[in-house]
Amino acid sequence: MKTLPLFDPILAELEAVEETLHEAVNVEQAELRETLTYLLDSGGKRIRPALVILSSKFYEHDESRVTPLAAAVEMLHTATLVHDDLLDGSSLRRGNETLNSRLNSGAVVLVGDYLFARAADLAAATDSVPVVNIFAKTLMTICRGELRHAFSQDGWHRTKEEYYLSTYSKTASLFAASAEAGALLSGAPNRVVRALREYGCNLGMAFQIVDDILDFVGDEDELGKPIGSDLRQGTATLPLLLFLEERPETGLLRCIFEHGEGREEAITTVVDLVRASPSIELAREEAGRHTVEAKQALGGLSANLYRQVLLDLADYLLERRR
Amino acid sequence: MKTLPLFDPILAELEAVEETLHEAVNVEQAELRETLTYLLDSGGKRIRPALVILSSKFYEHDESRVTPLAAAVEMLHTATLVHDDLLDGSSLRRGNETLNSRLNSGAVVLVGDYLFARAADLAAATDSVPVVNIFAKTLMTICRGELRHAFSQDGWHRTKEEYYLSTYSKTASLFAASAEAGALLSGAPNRVVRALREYGCNLGMAFQIVDDILDFVGDEDELGKPIGSDLRQGTATLPLLLFLEERPETGLLRCIFEHGEGREEAITTVVDLVRASPSIELAREEAGRHTVEAKQALGGLSANLYRQVLLDLADYLLERRR
Repeated sequence: MKTLPLFDPILAELEAVEETLHEAVNVEQAELRETLTYLLDSGGKRIRPALVILSSKFYEHDESRVTPLAAAVEMLHTATLVHDDLLDGSSLRRGNETLNSRLNSGAVVLVGDYLFARAADLAAATDSVPVVNIFAKTLMTICRGELRHAFSQDGWHRTKEEYYLSTYSKTASLFAASAEAGALLSGAPNRVVRALREYGCNLGMAFQIVDDILDFVGDEDELGKPIGSDLRQGTATLPLLLFLEERPETGLLRCIFEHGEGREEAITTVVDLVRASPSIELAREEAGRHTVEAKQALGGLSANLYRQVLLDLADYLLERRR
Repeated sequence: MKTLPLFDPILAELEAVEETLHEAVNVEQAELRETLTYLLDSGGKRIRPALVILSSKFYEHDESRVTPLAAAVEMLHTATLVHDDLLDGSSLRRGNETLNSRLNSGAVVLVGDYLFARAADLAAATDSVPVVNIFAKTLMTICRGELRHAFSQDGWHRTKEEYYLSTYSKTASLFAASAEAGALLSGAPNRVVRALREYGCNLGMAFQIVDDILDFVGDEDELGKPIGSDLRQGTATLPLLLFLEERPETGLLRCIFEHGEGREEAITTVVDLVRASPSIELAREEAGRHTVEAKQALGGLSANLYRQVLLDLADYLLERRR
């Protein structure tokens, strides 16, 4: 498990989540088991499970219900990535091959469906109807966001409001749900549940904005995917939208978003233009504002070790290079 | 709603389910709302919701929890059909266009995902963790069944055991879950919950076997899809497997399952051969045995109106022509 050093205080809990995840994919069918294990092992830093665990630490909590919840959110996240990569036709994620390169598209749809089912099963293992409710509502939000994107012909004519809404659906909603549900399971009072949800939501917004910045300025080796992926997939993110407020570049963008000739060169040119513009810094300031709001939301919580980890996590995610 | 006359005693309950289903798809996004409404309106006879309702009728029950459960199973069923039709590349179902003909495949994946999420949300509205558990486990069973099919290179070298396992996963598991969860919500004793689950499971097996028979002997106009669809999609069902026990027809089948030249004629020939053979009658006997077992499972239940509807339903599904 390649988690973050700042999660050291909850390493044992994260290892229990890892065990639960691996048990959950230990199915009889060899191909399915190998596929699911591959997905888990090429997984990320387990930020969402960590959010669940940390958010449960402010009140008395029952580890045996927190662990399946933390596993459920990671499983749900993995399911959405599997279908996302299929829709985008992506062949790499975090430097690893996506399932698209390994299975036919029908099997990829089904593997994603199975992960959704397994995630729902893990959510039910918390024995909490409110938690299952949050879980189902979050999945609906994520799907609605994706569907807005799939049904829209927006191209680069996207408002910042549309970008923020999509960022909430795609990323912040699950961060918010992880923190909220973790707090709920610990029987925290409403005020604390709301504060942790607010933290999670802002953390998720900052996380996604930084992701979108890195798609312009990051290092391909560190990211494990090519620069300009969003543009290549026809998605206009915050750095581009801020750039366009100052300097509309419709010629190059028409070529990119309408799949014209010389599209790859146009992508390289637009990436260079955006990198050289102030919009990267402006987008970073926006992520910074969400980071500040995330940290402020924790103001009323007990000043314990776990609150410190949450504060450090917000700073870390803002500064990360991958 | 085109439901069955024998459901008249629960018509008001089925109408409440219909209302819940339509409320559930009344989302803000116009394209999504229209797509989901189209799916519901081209829906079937609501057998699964009826199973939930009828199974809840033997003990005191709270209608406000039964209705969302009945809506949840129909929604889950619809979700699996959407992804199934995508995987099979089917363009017609029940005489209506599938989503494949109306949307790109990415949007179809997402519409299915949204329906899964909405179904989970409705299941959570029962406020019962055991029901959510059954729900998630059933979805896992369905996906695992589909995945076995997707990962296998079986062709027509499929054993009857594999056919039965797949029939359970694909159809009987959700029939069983509908009856079981309906009974659970009414606080029925274990013995009754088990009996109703047993009924649902056998009803589902018979239902699917009859479906597979109709794919050979049915009327295309009544079915709303072409005869021989299973063969065309490379699926060997019970009538073919029984036929092969007596008379292996490897030449024609190789052509069908390996997409050889003259495939359509081979399909027509095999359909005619199977129709003319005793295997149709043998398959019908097998469906009949499950129908008998289904009815026997109800032996210990109160002999009320609802038990009579369940008994009649078993006979009706065996005799149906579409």
